[in-house]
Amino acid sequence: MNLIATPQGLARLDADLGGDGAVLLDLPFADVAELLAAGEGFAPAHAARERGRIEPGELLAPLGSTGAIWGVGLNYLSKAHLTGRAAPSEPILFLRSPSAVSAPGAEVTLPRDRSSQVDYEGEVAFVIGRPMYRTPPGEVWNHIAGITAANDMTARDVMVATATPTLAKSFPGFGALGASVLELSAVDDPERITVRTGVNGTVRQDSSTAELIFAVPELISRISHFAALRPGDVVLTGTPAGTGQDRGVFLCPGDEVEVSVAGVLPLRTRYR
Amino acid sequence: MNLIATPQGLARLDADLGGDGAVLLDLPFADVAELLAAGEGFAPAHAARERGRIEPGELLAPLGSTGAIWGVGLNYLSKAHLTGRAAPSEPILFLRSPSAVSAPGAEVTLPRDRSSQVDYEGEVAFVIGRPMYRTPPGEVWNHIAGITAANDMTARDVMVATATPTLAKSFPGFGALGASVLELSAVDDPERITVRTGVNGTVRQDSSTAELIFAVPELISRISHFAALRPGDVVLTGTPAGTGQDRGVFLCPGDEVEVSVAGVLPLRTRYR
Repeated sequence: MNLIATPQGLARLDADLGGDGAVLLDLPFADVAELLAAGEGFAPAHAARERGRIEPGELLAPLGSTGAIWGVGLNYLSKAHLTGRAAPSEPILFLRSPSAVSAPGAEVTLPRDRSSQVDYEGEVAFVIGRPMYRTPPGEVWNHIAGITAANDMTARDVMVATATPTLAKSFPGFGALGASVLELSAVDDPERITVRTGVNGTVRQDSSTAELIFAVPELISRISHFAALRPGDVVLTGTPAGTGQDRGVFLCPGDEVEVSVAGVLPLRTRYR
Repeated sequence: MNLIATPQGLARLDADLGGDGAVLLDLPFADVAELLAAGEGFAPAHAARERGRIEPGELLAPLGSTGAIWGVGLNYLSKAHLTGRAAPSEPILFLRSPSAVSAPGAEVTLPRDRSSQVDYEGEVAFVIGRPMYRTPPGEVWNHIAGITAANDMTARDVMVATATPTLAKSFPGFGALGASVLELSAVDDPERITVRTGVNGTVRQDSSTAELIFAVPELISRISHFAALRPGDVVLTGTPAGTGQDRGVFLCPGDEVEVSVAGVLPLRTRYR
């Protein structure tokens, strides 16, 4: 099952309609994070009465009400090689302000008086389905509800000036998540999820979670040894080589970034 | 107005009863963060029908559903002097996982296999009442709904090992907030709010926000230049001298910490 949040409610993407059609579900949740916070994963969506087909126009943030958005610095070897940094021995973890979440198709205002180096980071994100604390890597998959795409935007100059990822990544709109949330059971190979980022139509990032330095079970297990994770929380897994930083080119008004994660409706963000 | 969250619902402390009695309010909010997220500050509580007097026993976390908990490192000159560190030129800001919030009177489990240096930090916390982004210092007070006490617990050894406040401060229970939330308009002098921390009955911290390096309007304004703040979000203001670190003594099972902020019901945390 592949869920989107629409102004009419949660809806299931209908693959038979080529990804454009969807079926509205009779559910009392404003978004997928609320659905998962109810503690039964996707089950309520599977059991929900169908309210009819729609052709989705505007999409809402499917994880707009999420409680915690964890991220990790430098988790692809390709990125480590390009930056000349050694692969870290421990994941570099951070939280982003939940107020930074933007919806699919959003137009994000570049905070140009604060930063001239705003960059995209295409990533695979995992959404927690069951409460986790001190969860061993071997049990992590049982606690994941689904996946989505993330554009983990970063003001590179703010990062250098403050050494604080939370500050460089919490400007309004900098946490794009979506466009759909794909149930984990529908993912072909959870250890090898492809992620591709296009900027103004040119592919700039193309990798998969098979290339992670800290693989998903290890990464999420480690977070759970410091903090409890709750259903609806989100974990970003890091970005591969190919960000603007790698070319010395940063986002400008008019740019459009699209992050495609296998099976997930592409996540587009425009900039002004 | 001074609000507590009880298993029966939100209640107003009744000062005439010496702080022990309270009046249940007919409100549809599980906690004060939800009340404030409705966007009208304390107004719905002032307008609410009274449901009768209670003698509160168990208290719930009044800010359990808060979206973001910001904190700041080294924001009292007394603490800077003791540690021999220079006063920072910019506030050292961090987010704590919202899963770390504990209720007044909670018994927090020390994660003894991860840390032998868990420390208390008594602090004054401010609760946001109106949306803020790029709010000038002079307008900050208009956006604050109330104050509460915080015990901003920190695993000092985890802080040294990871250099990441978010990890050192997000263990379950490490974000104690409460016991009541006092409306800002009921605070005598918002620029000089006293905070006192007792450990097993001995006063260990005794200061006021008049001693802050970054005063409240400046501190919260700066956060709002990096991230939007939403009603119900919480900002901790730093801890004065007198933490366990300053004596080389850390929390042990059986310890009890009480943080008293003027006008706020004292916040007690026990350890096991």
